[in-house]
Amino acid sequence: MFKNADINFKLVLKIIGFLLMIEGFFMFLGIPFSLYYHETSYLALLYSGLITSAVGATLFIALRKYTSNIIGKREGYLIVTFTWITTSFFGTLPFLFSGAIPGFTNAFFETMSGFTTTGATILSDIEAVPKGILFWRSLTHWIGGMGIIVLSVAILPVLGIGGMQLFVAEMPGPTHDKLHPRITHTAKRLWAIYVLLTFAETIMLMTGGMNLFDGLCHAFGTMATGGFSTQNDSIAGYSSYIQYIIIFFMILAGTNFTLHYFALQGRLRKVWDNEEYRNYLALIGLATIAITIAITSLGTVEMEKAFRDTLFTVVSIITTTGFVTDNYLLWPGTLWLIIFLLMFVGGSAGSTGGGMKVIRQLLLLKNSGQELKRLIHRQAVIPVKLNKKSVDGDIIYKVMAFFLIYILIFVFGTLIMSALGLDFESAAGSVAASLGNIGPGIGSVGPIENYSHIPLAGQWVLSFIMLLGRLELFTVLIIFAPAFWKK
Amino acid sequence: MFKNADINFKLVLKIIGFLLMIEGFFMFLGIPFSLYYHETSYLALLYSGLITSAVGATLFIALRKYTSNIIGKREGYLIVTFTWITTSFFGTLPFLFSGAIPGFTNAFFETMSGFTTTGATILSDIEAVPKGILFWRSLTHWIGGMGIIVLSVAILPVLGIGGMQLFVAEMPGPTHDKLHPRITHTAKRLWAIYVLLTFAETIMLMTGGMNLFDGLCHAFGTMATGGFSTQNDSIAGYSSYIQYIIIFFMILAGTNFTLHYFALQGRLRKVWDNEEYRNYLALIGLATIAITIAITSLGTVEMEKAFRDTLFTVVSIITTTGFVTDNYLLWPGTLWLIIFLLMFVGGSAGSTGGGMKVIRQLLLLKNSGQELKRLIHRQAVIPVKLNKKSVDGDIIYKVMAFFLIYILIFVFGTLIMSALGLDFESAAGSVAASLGNIGPGIGSVGPIENYSHIPLAGQWVLSFIMLLGRLELFTVLIIFAPAFWKK
Repeated sequence: MFKNADINFKLVLKIIGFLLMIEGFFMFLGIPFSLYYHETSYLALLYSGLITSAVGATLFIALRKYTSNIIGKREGYLIVTFTWITTSFFGTLPFLFSGAIPGFTNAFFETMSGFTTTGATILSDIEAVPKGILFWRSLTHWIGGMGIIVLSVAILPVLGIGGMQLFVAEMPGPTHDKLHPRITHTAKRLWAIYVLLTFAETIMLMTGGMNLFDGLCHAFGTMATGGFSTQNDSIAGYSSYIQYIIIFFMILAGTNFTLHYFALQGRLRKVWDNEEYRNYLALIGLATIAITIAITSLGTVEMEKAFRDTLFTVVSIITTTGFVTDNYLLWPGTLWLIIFLLMFVGGSAGSTGGGMKVIRQLLLLKNSGQELKRLIHRQAVIPVKLNKKSVDGDIIYKVMAFFLIYILIFVFGTLIMSALGLDFESAAGSVAASLGNIGPGIGSVGPIENYSHIPLAGQWVLSFIMLLGRLELFTVLIIFAPAFWKK
Repeated sequence: MFKNADINFKLVLKIIGFLLMIEGFFMFLGIPFSLYYHETSYLALLYSGLITSAVGATLFIALRKYTSNIIGKREGYLIVTFTWITTSFFGTLPFLFSGAIPGFTNAFFETMSGFTTTGATILSDIEAVPKGILFWRSLTHWIGGMGIIVLSVAILPVLGIGGMQLFVAEMPGPTHDKLHPRITHTAKRLWAIYVLLTFAETIMLMTGGMNLFDGLCHAFGTMATGGFSTQNDSIAGYSSYIQYIIIFFMILAGTNFTLHYFALQGRLRKVWDNEEYRNYLALIGLATIAITIAITSLGTVEMEKAFRDTLFTVVSIITTTGFVTDNYLLWPGTLWLIIFLLMFVGGSAGSTGGGMKVIRQLLLLKNSGQELKRLIHRQAVIPVKLNKKSVDGDIIYKVMAFFLIYILIFVFGTLIMSALGLDFESAAGSVAASLGNIGPGIGSVGPIENYSHIPLAGQWVLSFIMLLGRLELFTVLIIFAPAFWKK
């Protein structure tokens, strides 16, 4: 329960300091690749890592006495939001020091895009960037994905936010009403799965001909549903074998990680009984079949390629990854419109995918149907059922409020981007792709374009929108509510 | 309460028959104008009127014994939906007989557009159409507006649909849970106001130089928030005096008619205390000021003209009228995007305006703010307040469901129109303008365009969407629910 106490800013800072130390350590991981490829970028990574860990360590040590077994809710919101902002701030250092991205705004956009697992890039020539720096760029995805897992299973449910609250009762995990500073057991298990799948994908990509560097970077981008590639043409230049592997792991990354846990335990029944999972797969299947048939009927592309490009695109967009093998904007109007609409679906709750999430869409659709029944039988209580259980009206209410605010942000974001000079499609596309943490949008931010032409003010707006989307809107918005700051 | 009885189709048909008799009578009203302008169109009107009343009378007389003091809810839904469909069906006759519109699909689209007070037209050269037929065309607006008034104050609240249910308690009107076949006292009073305002506007338009014919037609189009004009360039060619008069009456038409009733009684306090009304005026004011400043700053248009065109456009779109004085698609991107967004606002509940209605938008915005407060103070009950009273959570729930289904229809409608060959903007624009009963949209159905190029299948889709929007979605959708047809 919320206590009317002062906010413990020092505890917030201490925890952010601790996480900065970890971020600094991660920066060092790119150094071996810099050295291997005989680049000078190792210096940028070294200095960035030292500065970041030093700042983190200073904060942590200076504030070490502010310990607490329980962290208040308001501190929780602040920690989560400012962790993403602070790590993005320091995450720009390797880009700036190496000169790969000279401007701070560009670098911040790129880093926020990384940590939010969006994958929107301002780089026009990715292959010209030193490998060590590209490794850090892809690593921001992977770190972001780890953050999302712990958020969605351990932190947001306690704060009353996010689709996973529906499953909280089913999981071994947080049942208390207070945040515990220790990461829960569940989160650790899911991290292990995340790490395992990342390495499995890396190895499989290497069997397809990628080297360790490209394999790791693309596995980071896949498992975090990020989308940064090391190639200018994303995944288009790779073999169909590699494309299918990435499709497979994107689907896994967009799945609720607790289902992977059940699957590893052999509890497959529990996986298949999950309605969100079934609908997630069904949606991918239906969209792929429909678009493949439409494209094949044009007669210009051969069947297997049409199927592969469609499946890749549909999976990449629904899971909010954003890897690209084909320019869907060249598809007939209705087909890219379907892709645009899929941008509003998002992955599963408890996955690393962003967006509204399949479960919310499912509940909204079901509730719309029930609403008609309620008009006919007005005295009866007609609940929405999920996984054969009635869903509390309160949850439906929250999901509808989420949908509404998501649309509001999309609309106002589009208006702002339009005021900054973007045409209608590009404004709508950039906001939809940022809010859903996807990367490629429509218009001038389409799949074979990038965000380098977005005015600097627009890059700040989109960075903020990425953050909003990634943290399930409320985590960030609540900080702007006057009530948040009242004693 | 809903009874598990068979649906009394004969009663439904009898009432529709009765309304057809009235429709036939209305068709005759154009004859004097045909004769005055020496047109042969009086024959088309005469025959159409005779056929329509004859069919109506036959139904009514054949089924006269099926009387009932109370009409069940399911019969209510059927009567409302099929009244609009049937009157639109017979309403095509004057267009077809006169040859003004040769094809049935085109004629049905035009008539449905009339009765739903949308104002979207497939006529490219309006001025070439005989005056008698144009009179009928404008009259469909006015009849539709009358229908909407009785619907919104007397029928939909009983069916549990529509924004006016919020005010039911405040009004002298239906408090029973059954439909009474007599039109309520309230509806009659509001009709009187509707008629009064129509004549007042006609006279004022005539003082500005319009003849009786043009004055009546434009007053019909204004008071019903319809938008059919007798001129090819809509209101653009009229004097600024006439434009201001139409602005004034559009604002009145988009206002809750019960407020006019209060105003006529001198209870001005009650008018001003109405939050929807204040926000409706504030929205018009804010949008107008913002756009006027932006347009004036371009330096190409003089201040008064910029202000007048902006105010006219904003009022025309918010009230869902659709009259045009300026091509807003030529405004800078952000400005026409604002106009496009205003298409989703709609008039006030209890007005003749369509769309989502200001009150729903207001409740949704307020609830989004409260939702943040609820996250902070989770144990507390934090209601949404309207007119200083707490709004029941159930109402908020219904409003959110309405918003969601509105967006769903918009999205799927856009997808269908795109599949029928329209480009993205035209597809989105035609659906937004049809669903909101506005008329002009964006893209190829912009303010100086018309709907004649829409493929016939698309005209049927849009006709259905107009009907959905006009009847507050649920009235129509419920008929498609399997539960509706179960005993």
